[in-house]
Amino acid sequence: MLKSLKQKVLEANLQLPEHGLVTFTWGNVSGIDRDLGIVVIKPSGVAYDYLKLEDMVVVDLEGNIVEGSLRPSSDTATHLALYKAFSEIGGVVHTHSPWATSWAQAQRPIPALGTTHADYYYGEIPVTRPLTKQEIQDAYELETGNVIIETFKNLDLDPAAMPGVLVAGHAPFCWGKDADEAVHNAVVLDEVAKMAFHTVQLNQHVSAMDQFLLDKHYLRKHGSKAYYGQR
Amino acid sequence: MLKSLKQKVLEANLQLPEHGLVTFTWGNVSGIDRDLGIVVIKPSGVAYDYLKLEDMVVVDLEGNIVEGSLRPSSDTATHLALYKAFSEIGGVVHTHSPWATSWAQAQRPIPALGTTHADYYYGEIPVTRPLTKQEIQDAYELETGNVIIETFKNLDLDPAAMPGVLVAGHAPFCWGKDADEAVHNAVVLDEVAKMAFHTVQLNQHVSAMDQFLLDKHYLRKHGSKAYYGQR
Amino acid sequence: MLKSLKQKVLEANLQLPEHGLVTFTWGNVSGIDRDLGIVVIKPSGVAYDYLKLEDMVVVDLEGNIVEGSLRPSSDTATHLALYKAFSEIGGVVHTHSPWATSWAQAQRPIPALGTTHADYYYGEIPVTRPLTKQEIQDAYELETGNVIIETFKNLDLDPAAMPGVLVAGHAPFCWGKDADEAVHNAVVLDEVAKMAFHTVQLNQHVSAMDQFLLDKHYLRKHGSKAYYGQR
Amino acid sequence: MLKSLKQKVLEANLQLPEHGLVTFTWGNVSGIDRDLGIVVIKPSGVAYDYLKLEDMVVVDLEGNIVEGSLRPSSDTATHLALYKAFSEIGGVVHTHSPWATSWAQAQRPIPALGTTHADYYYGEIPVTRPLTKQEIQDAYELETGNVIIETFKNLDLDPAAMPGVLVAGHAPFCWGKDADEAVHNAVVLDEVAKMAFHTVQLNQHVSAMDQFLLDKHYLRKHGSKAYYGQR
Repeated sequence: MLKSLKQKVLEANLQLPEHGLVTFTWGNVSGIDRDLGIVVIKPSGVAYDYLKLEDMVVVDLEGNIVEGSLRPSSDTATHLALYKAFSEIGGVVHTHSPWATSWAQAQRPIPALGTTHADYYYGEIPVTRPLTKQEIQDAYELETGNVIIETFKNLDLDPAAMPGVLVAGHAPFCWGKDADEAVHNAVVLDEVAKMAFHTVQLNQHVSAMDQFLLDKHYLRKHGSKAYYGQR
Repeated sequence: MLKSLKQKVLEANLQLPEHGLVTFTWGNVSGIDRDLGIVVIKPSGVAYDYLKLEDMVVVDLEGNIVEGSLRPSSDTATHLALYKAFSEIGGVVHTHSPWATSWAQAQRPIPALGTTHADYYYGEIPVTRPLTKQEIQDAYELETGNVIIETFKNLDLDPAAMPGVLVAGHAPFCWGKDADEAVHNAVVLDEVAKMAFHTVQLNQHVSAMDQFLLDKHYLRKHGSKAYYGQR
Repeated sequence: MLKSLKQKVLEANLQLPEHGLVTFTWGNVSGIDRDLGIVVIKPSGVAYDYLKLEDMVVVDLEGNIVEGSLRPSSDTATHLALYKAFSEIGGVVHTHSPWATSWAQAQRPIPALGTTHADYYYGEIPVTRPLTKQEIQDAYELETGNVIIETFKNLDLDPAAMPGVLVAGHAPFCWGKDADEAVHNAVVLDEVAKMAFHTVQLNQHVSAMDQFLLDKHYLRKHGSKAYYGQR
Repeated sequence: MLKSLKQKVLEANLQLPEHGLVTFTWGNVSGIDRDLGIVVIKPSGVAYDYLKLEDMVVVDLEGNIVEGSLRPSSDTATHLALYKAFSEIGGVVHTHSPWATSWAQAQRPIPALGTTHADYYYGEIPVTRPLTKQEIQDAYELETGNVIIETFKNLDLDPAAMPGVLVAGHAPFCWGKDADEAVHNAVVLDEVAKMAFHTVQLNQHVSAMDQFLLDKHYLRKHGSKAYYGQR
């Protein structure tokens, strides 16, 4: 089972360069086995071209290395914080994908401007507050997770219906029911961020889409009455 | 003959990822056999990489499945409405291609700014009004078709000379004499939308091209006096 | 010799899709044999994927077909006008390359903003005036050539030092000592147009580069004191 | 040893087209052997597709050709000036990569807006003043090096922590501990320049990232307490 999870996490990591989401090693995907309480994650700073199954690092939820000879991603503590706070998620991905990162750097949430957005993200994609000096110096990666969790709490957001966030001055984190879906959502996020960029350039005063159109599209693909696809 | 139509619709669908118009499964092409009164359309949510001839779904103009084991595209009702209202068209395509979708989200029509546009679209490419809550809740995909038809009626547009539209807050639909030409027009639309975006950034006060230049280019490629190509 | 010219013109045409300058058949390259007074040009509307040596059309300077079973590019009259007026050029190319076309649509000349520009284009790249209704109706493609020639005369430009132009509301034409160099200059033009677009977005009040830097870079690559490359 | 350096410099040059940093021959990489006091650099104007090990040119620090039958890059004097002034660097690269060049043309430094930037460039990436007429006419390439050195002196910048610069009205130069790292930094620069462009479009009043976040990310990857990667 662990081998299967490692394989899935490896494949999800390899999708990042395929979808043009990463330059060099700027991204990492993890997946969790909730029963065993262990997480498989990309090793730190290893190029995707050379990534092998046995390079995947297995850690417990406290970040202790359970298996693997390489150091886990430097963002591991963020992944673990998200797994602990968002019990329904099974995969996490962090990238510096160019369009989402531009919004994160601009410290602007991405408004829901169309049905592409609504098909995956049920409302405005939030941006966190900047971390404080104290947070950064004390436990940077852990606090990055905490500020995401705080943002979702403050905005009363459901991580299942809002599978991503922009960390201010940094870049996006996304998630999903498993590593593959997390990457899927990261691809969507960058595409949505790109189109939102161009939309606001074309119409500075564009308002968010109507709530009933957002409802229609999100619920057409998600939930018990979904009728998109072959389900 | 049905096999031939299925093959053409399959190939037209496969052109979408080749031309970079789609991410994941965000697009669908159909083609109609006017004599038989049947439409072949992409199945819902199936990845292009795995799409096979036998996956194509055959429906009648009321949307009843005539042949095929998969569910047709969730946008089927929009396609059918267009076939019924625009009697001269033989193929329909819907994508979320990034540049056209940005204009659709900005709820701005694409002005005719140059000869690239004029070669295919005989004037400003229209954007629909947003759908009402009632329309969305009652029969969303059908009403998407209806609002396109309404837009063409209100603006007195000829679907043969204006082979595409932007649905407000959503994305484009295009069409043509067959599925292949519909996709061709969708490629043109995104290219035209991209160049129009950059043009209005460079010159906010740019006005539409002269009507006589629009006439010249459109009629150079279309109609009885066309002299472009090997016809 | 004619076969050699046909081969060169074919290869130059095939470079257009390789460099991403064309969508579908939106571009054409020609080359001239000055001694024979004949021009080889792409046939109209033939896809690059299927273009063969024997498809190339041979015309004289009056546009009469000397050899070839296909119709020449619909822009042939523009090419011929340029060959007649600009005696030093040996190749002409027309594309709707996206960045240059955006400037042409915006009816703005491309200012010389940096050394990339200066390495190939010795000053601001001009945009023509729009054609009049009369010109378009009477002899559109010929008058497109004429308005380019008029622009160069009015601005006192040397076609050898300014190997391209933007036709207002249309797209660029470029040229060079042969078909290959013409395409080279078309690639440069689109790259320069792209960077100029982003430069003016970053700094609306940017002024043209200093004349002495323009001189330095242009003359480093061109003329008797050039020292770039292996010449 | 020389062969090994030539091989590394060749490979570093070949990375430029792979990463999309160059059009035609618009870029050159060099590497230095500090013990021998010699520099290996790309020949001038040779296409990357045809570049071979034996084409690499070996020069001493005064620019005399020590080995090689081709002329060295016309930018050699700039490379040599940088090697002499910045004793800790082992490789230099010059490109006209599109995003960084747009900032150079706009004569704007690239502000540090996010952690992608901070991971490699420890603060705002500077832009030089324009060269004077005298400098350009007397010793253009040498003075290009000198104005970079002057910029670093005036701003009290450490070349090891700020491995690149924008030359006003021209394009970027980058460097690193060897040729490979120099190219790595050039790739990062263009990506950072792209995201900064979009960020300032989204938020004209965006301020530079907090110094403590900049410190955290830079020092996470560099220096004695680095913990990114497998070091």
